[in-house]
Formats: sequence, C-alpha cells, structure tokens
Amino acid sequence: MRDVAIIGIGQTKVGEHWEKGLRHLALEALQAAMVDAGVDRVDTLYVGNMLSGELTGQEHLGALVADFAGMRGVEAVKVEAACGSGAAALRLGYIAVAGGMADVVLVVGVEKMTDATGPQNTAALAMAADADYEAAQGLSFVAINGLLMRRYMYEYGYRKEDFAPFTVNAHANAMNNPYAMFRVRVTPGSYTRARMIADPINLMDSSPIGDGAAAVILVPADWARRFPQPPVRIAGSAVGTDAVALHDRRDPLVMEGAALSAYRAYQQAGVGPEEIDLFELHDAFSIMAALSLEAAGFARRGEGVRLALEGKIGIQGRVPVATMGGLKARGHPVGATGVYQVVEVVQQLRGEAGANQVPDARIGMAQNIGGSGATVITHILERME
Amino acid sequence: MRDVAIIGIGQTKVGEHWEKGLRHLALEALQAAMVDAGVDRVDTLYVGNMLSGELTGQEHLGALVADFAGMRGVEAVKVEAACGSGAAALRLGYIAVAGGMADVVLVVGVEKMTDATGPQNTAALAMAADADYEAAQGLSFVAINGLLMRRYMYEYGYRKEDFAPFTVNAHANAMNNPYAMFRVRVTPGSYTRARMIADPINLMDSSPIGDGAAAVILVPADWARRFPQPPVRIAGSAVGTDAVALHDRRDPLVMEGAALSAYRAYQQAGVGPEEIDLFELHDAFSIMAALSLEAAGFARRGEGVRLALEGKIGIQGRVPVATMGGLKARGHPVGATGVYQVVEVVQQLRGEAGANQVPDARIGMAQNIGGSGATVITHILERME
Repeated sequence: MRDVAIIGIGQTKVGEHWEKGLRHLALEALQAAMVDAGVDRVDTLYVGNMLSGELTGQEHLGALVADFAGMRGVEAVKVEAACGSGAAALRLGYIAVAGGMADVVLVVGVEKMTDATGPQNTAALAMAADADYEAAQGLSFVAINGLLMRRYMYEYGYRKEDFAPFTVNAHANAMNNPYAMFRVRVTPGSYTRARMIADPINLMDSSPIGDGAAAVILVPADWARRFPQPPVRIAGSAVGTDAVALHDRRDPLVMEGAALSAYRAYQQAGVGPEEIDLFELHDAFSIMAALSLEAAGFARRGEGVRLALEGKIGIQGRVPVATMGGLKARGHPVGATGVYQVVEVVQQLRGEAGANQVPDARIGMAQNIGGSGATVITHILERME
Repeated sequence: MRDVAIIGIGQTKVGEHWEKGLRHLALEALQAAMVDAGVDRVDTLYVGNMLSGELTGQEHLGALVADFAGMRGVEAVKVEAACGSGAAALRLGYIAVAGGMADVVLVVGVEKMTDATGPQNTAALAMAADADYEAAQGLSFVAINGLLMRRYMYEYGYRKEDFAPFTVNAHANAMNNPYAMFRVRVTPGSYTRARMIADPINLMDSSPIGDGAAAVILVPADWARRFPQPPVRIAGSAVGTDAVALHDRRDPLVMEGAALSAYRAYQQAGVGPEEIDLFELHDAFSIMAALSLEAAGFARRGEGVRLALEGKIGIQGRVPVATMGGLKARGHPVGATGVYQVVEVVQQLRGEAGANQVPDARIGMAQNIGGSGATVITHILERME
C-alpha cells in the first residue's frame, strides 16, 4: 500500500447561497482545489453528501458533479454516512490511492440546505438517527443532543455556563476565517443568554446548518513534490461505528465509535494524542465537542469540559480545536463538513492559517461524526518535511 | 494489487415485504451470504441503496445495518449511484480488497419501496435524473425511457412488438427462480396488449420496483479455496459515467457511459464480448436492454433488438440475458439490483442455476445502470478452475 498525500484544497464560504445549486457549490470548491494543486484532470471523484435527495430532489450526485465539472466519463460515486459523509468520501479516496486503484482522486463534500424550510431540514437531519426507534418518537437531532448534555451535567456536576468556552473559542477563531458563516464574537454572557432550543441546549450550543462545499485532491505521496503546494501526508485514516440509536449504546456518555476510530487512526499513524498539534473535532453541539475530546484521549471521562474551562482548547492551548471556527461558527453544511475539517487542518500544516496559525503545527487530526456518534471517521495528517 | 474472489452470495425474494423494514431485508440477505461463505465476521461493510431517506426517512444505513447484523464497530458506509448503487457498493468492496485495505468485505444492496405510495416512488425515482433540467419539466423516469424508445423505433424502423422477446425471455426465466417477483409467463400477445404507461412503453416494457436485498462476500482470490463454495474471481470491475440529462448527451441512442464501463472491464479482464457466456444486463425498460447490448459490443448500433428477435438472448442462445428473470421479472429493488445481478452470475458460474443453467458457463458479465445511463458499473466474473 502506498502513502497518500493531499496536494490541493478548496472551499466555498459557508452560508445561505440562494443563488447557487448543489452543482455550482461543488464546482466552486473543486475548481479551487484543482487550481491549488495545479492539476487539470483526475481519475476518480468521490462526493460526500447526505441530503441532496430529501432537500433538493436530486440523487445521483457522482455523475452530476463529474459532468458539470467537465469530467464526463470519469469514475464517480456519492457516499453517505449522515453528517460524516464528507470524511467518508475522503476515506474512499484514500483507499483508492493507497491501494493503487487510482492516482489522482478528487474528493468533494457538498450540501445545500437553504432551499428547504426549517421543519424540512429538521426532519431531514433526523434521518441520521434511527427512524424506527428515535425519529418515530419525535426525537429531533437537537433533542438527542439535549438528552446527552443533560445527562453529562448530571453525572459530572457541570453547570450550563461551563460549556461556554467551546462556543467562545469557535467564534473567536471564525473572526479570522473568510469562509466562516458567523464571524461574530460570542461572550460567556451572550452564550448563557441565548434562546433555548432543547433544554439544556440553546442556540449558542448548536452549530448552524448552511450551504457549502469543500474539496481536496489526493495523489500517491511519492508524487507529491511535483506539485506546487507543500504536501500533507495522510498518516492515519479510520472508521469506527456504533449503534445508531442512543439507547442501544452501552453507555451514552462514551462514544465508542469515536474511540475506536481514533484508536485505529493513532495505531496506523504511530502517534498518540500527545503528538497532535491541533484537533478539528465535530462540534455540532458543545456536548459533542466534550465527548469527542474524551473519546480521542485528550481528556478523561467527564473532563472534556474542564479542558475547555482551563483554556487548553485555544490556538495557543494544549489542544487547539475549531481553529477556523469549527461547526459552530464556520458553519455545518452537513455532508461537506468532514472535508472542511480536513481542508482546515491542511491550512494549519501548510502554515496558511493566518492570525489563527497554531505555532509550528506538524500533525493535525480531523474527526467527523455521523449521527450522535454512530459513524466516526478520523484522519491524522502530517506535514511532509 | 490482489485478485479478488466472491465466496458467498445471499438474496431475499423480491416483492412487497410489508412486514419487513430495510434492516430486516439487509440482514436476511447478508446472513445468507455469510452462511454460504462460511464466515462469521467481516472487516468492512458497503451498503448500496438509493432511496432509504426519501421513502422511509432513514439515512445512515452503513452503521444501521452493521449494528443490526451484530457487527457494531466495523467500518461501514452507504453508497449511492441511483439505480447503479448496488454495483457501486460492490466496486468499493473490490477496491478495498484488491488494494489490501480489507480482507473480508461484505457488500449488501437493499431497497424498501412498498411503504411509499406510487406517486412517491415515481417522484423519488426521478431523483436519478437531472432535478433542475429534467424532473423540473415533469419528466418521470418512464417518460425519459419512452422518449428513448420512440427515437430508437423511428431511427431504426422497429415496431413496438419487436421488443417483445426481451420481456418474454425474462419472464420465462423467472419461472424457475424462487427469488423472482413475477413468476408468470408472458406471450408476445400479452406483451402487446399490456396497458400503456408512457407511449410507446407499456407495462410489459417496464420492470417492477420492489423490496429486496442481496449480498456477496469478497476475499483475496488467494484465500478463496479455504471456503466451502466454488469461488468466482472478479476479472474486471469498472465504472463509466455520462451526462445525467438525456439532452446533454452527444447521441441519446448511444450509451457512452455503458460503452466506457464495458470497455474498461473488458480491458482489465483481457476478454471481449465473444468470451462472455452470459450477460446480466440492466433491463429496467426493454429499450435499456437493447441499448446495453449495443454499448457492450454484443450488437451493432440499432441491432440490439434484432439480436433478441433472432432468439440469441435465451439460455441456449449466443448471449443469454436476464437468466434468472432480469429486472423485468425478478424485479427491480432499485439500490439492490446491481448486487442481485452479480449473485445471479455467480449462481451460473457455480452451476447452481437449475433449469436456467447456461451450459458450461465460465465467464459472465453484469452491468448495472444508474439513471438513463449516467453511471454504469460493469463486472466480469470468472469461474476459478
């Protein structure tokens, strides 16, 4: 098996793109990635997307995007793993290049949500949960995370305001990211006063959905120096799964799929949490950020929130998270999110993160979560010296 | 890269499974495949499915099926390529094993349609077409194929009744397939008298949608003899794409994606159409059967229908097609169909096709088509001596 490198990245601003459809968003991101990489053709295209059928009446995105991008004929397919669809597409691209089946692979994550109403979006997102045993009971995704957060506070004795640092950090970092959806500062006070959605989750615990697309180009690592950008090696790539329904888990406060996914990625990369210079985690809700830090080994059980309270998640902290705004402030274009995370890790490893640059970032990790933890995809990226 | 073999197959009967959900159908097929192969664990699961979100409010099938099958933790993802989703999942399984990323891979195609109404199904299937430029004009999938069939008749001078042999052959073969949806004989007379749907397509030109699941188990070919069943090698595996919208094609009567897909598979396998002992083609509509025969090199342009008229597509013919009933009579459980086709080729190559056995079948081909030809996946399978 071959080492694989990322040689190009591209992204659109996350937001309400009323004037653009799925294909236009995907094109914008993939063209940026191809220009960045200096390539004008690819062997294979993997598209990560969750909701194109439900929200815009369009399936079959693989061929659709390939054709619209002028790549008619190329191998192309869409991959779905709920909110983990983006990183799932990257995982397939990694497998194809590592195994020698393709040399130049384009991975695009894309989602288009503003053409649907709020209730439509809520119902569509609930399809990431168990339709028969969760959604059928009226559990929305916010409600599921509300249950988790309530239990976490009860078990470990945290107060609602203890979660504020996740949101404050994400919004502070988004201020310097031109692609972020909400470049607005949040204070502990405005966090606490935000409108309640599903108690104890308020508006400032919840990432905003949005339209967006992000793309990366993969090649064998041996080829990477032929291209203009500083290459980044994929040192670890792994998927872990768990029960879809929360009540089927052994312990709802332990994300076993995330732990498994991180463990496999660490094993492959030959590193542990102590070597990770930044962690783009899946902060769809602030409780998810806490549970992710614990599952990935950065904090013990019940101590994810304490890590944030102690100021260790900032750019200068022990484990910088959401360095370009995270899902909370960059925005969460569902099936594209996993690719955004990887694009942002690459920005950090290339030293292109501007005011948000993590000093001397050499190894970064991105973890994309589908559902409330049922599909978790972890990638560990390393700057090639 | 390693050679890959199929060591186990499983399928449910295609039909209206009112009492079973997606997960139950998938489980039935995958358990049958695992028993057939004599394996009790797999490394990776790929699920092919098109419409679980639209029709049953459930996305995230990878983790859902893995958990329900007792494989919690295993790598699992859903793949979508419209009606080509099943073979697209097999293609990913092939890539993972060939490249050395996984050793034992389970591929499941599953679709559940009877919980939705007819109009819901028609609207959902139209998501395989171009939502902005075809579906928005009111074009259903039957209508798109009606346009194609009308043009074919006009260009080449065929009459409606000339297409009858495709349907007569498929239904004759389904009589001997216990998994087929419609085990009922069709005569040229009943073909011609069938109810019109989208002129010139009548009920007997159209494959029935249905519920169903099919599964295969893949391992490196070197391992294949350790398992109980006669192994079948995947000699060729290829994807070709084309424009999604019919009007964007260079010539609507030439399926360039299918030709490209077949060409790539032939090249990899080192064979041509003359070596293929049977061809499980994608007869979603009889016009698709004709165009597939032409694109895959079994007939020249405009001569696909003639091949059928000359009796060359029967079990004893030059190129047996739909040997277990095809989409027309076995049924078309959309995202599962591509896996059914491969299961049936394996039955033939193992000599397990009973009354429908193609004499001394050594090499078989399966071609699964997404949309009206925008994603085409071809697999060439060979009996391991």
